[in-house]
Amino acid sequence: MQNDIILKIAIDSFSMYIQRTTKMLDGLTDAQLAQEVAPAKNTGHYLLGHLIAVHDNLLPMLDMGESLYPQLVDVFLKNPDKSTLEKPSIAELRTQWTAVHTFLLSKLASLTFEQLLEKHTSVSAEDFEKEPHRNKLNVLLSRTSHLSYHVGQLALLIHSK
Amino acid sequence: MQNDIILKIAIDSFSMYIQRTTKMLDGLTDAQLAQEVAPAKNTGHYLLGHLIAVHDNLLPMLDMGESLYPQLVDVFLKNPDKSTLEKPSIAELRTQWTAVHTFLLSKLASLTFEQLLEKHTSVSAEDFEKEPHRNKLNVLLSRTSHLSYHVGQLALLIHSK
Repeated sequence: MQNDIILKIAIDSFSMYIQRTTKMLDGLTDAQLAQEVAPAKNTGHYLLGHLIAVHDNLLPMLDMGESLYPQLVDVFLKNPDKSTLEKPSIAELRTQWTAVHTFLLSKLASLTFEQLLEKHTSVSAEDFEKEPHRNKLNVLLSRTSHLSYHVGQLALLIHSK
Repeated sequence: MQNDIILKIAIDSFSMYIQRTTKMLDGLTDAQLAQEVAPAKNTGHYLLGHLIAVHDNLLPMLDMGESLYPQLVDVFLKNPDKSTLEKPSIAELRTQWTAVHTFLLSKLASLTFEQLLEKHTSVSAEDFEKEPHRNKLNVLLSRTSHLSYHVGQLALLIHSK
């Protein structure tokens, strides 16, 4: 019972933020997403790709399978918005957003409490023994904060035309 | 052991974000905080007061005592940035930021796992029986997301002069 509650809270906190972000993205036009969230800062286009790349990478980190779009890493994780690399179009990213999150949320829905406390795949068994808080729960909560950080920025595009 | 790990992760996720934000605020001048995070959006001044008011309100919600600055609620929670209400100065808010978080983090440091799963004070005992996930852990995680949402916006002030 107690474990179920903790599991529910952890999964819900991520899933509900994803749903909220999806709704926000649906309400923004491609033209709005193409704009910078503030003068000389990242565009919505970049942030959209960045969030997909980070969440796509959750799949291997949480031992849920391979990344679907590893080609996003270079453009949206290793390089900044104003690099010379060509970005996939916003339309293409919207499709990838849906694909990654549909898959990820379905995997999360079947995660068990025991799995939540298992080590994530980027930490060695040796380090995990010394630092047992480096588990999947920790990854999930830190990605939820990372997501909300950028959603706060994307929200600034809502009234720009 | 397992409970201690969960407790540590929940407290750390909030505390570490607070420390990160404090460092960011220390690096911003009053003139930078007086600016809007994006054209026609909230100022850093308002967001600073807003975050203090929300976290000050965590004290009664988590049953840790009375709010220190209830007068902030009207200006920073019930009214928007561009209301006619006079705001405390940024210097005054910086002092309040330190006071609220020093107190709150010390209280959080002595929170037990059992307390983390107790109901928060804004939910009735009756509702809590039906919805046992409305506990202090839930409040803490949702405030961490709320904080990161606005920190993402405050970060936009970093390069403005």
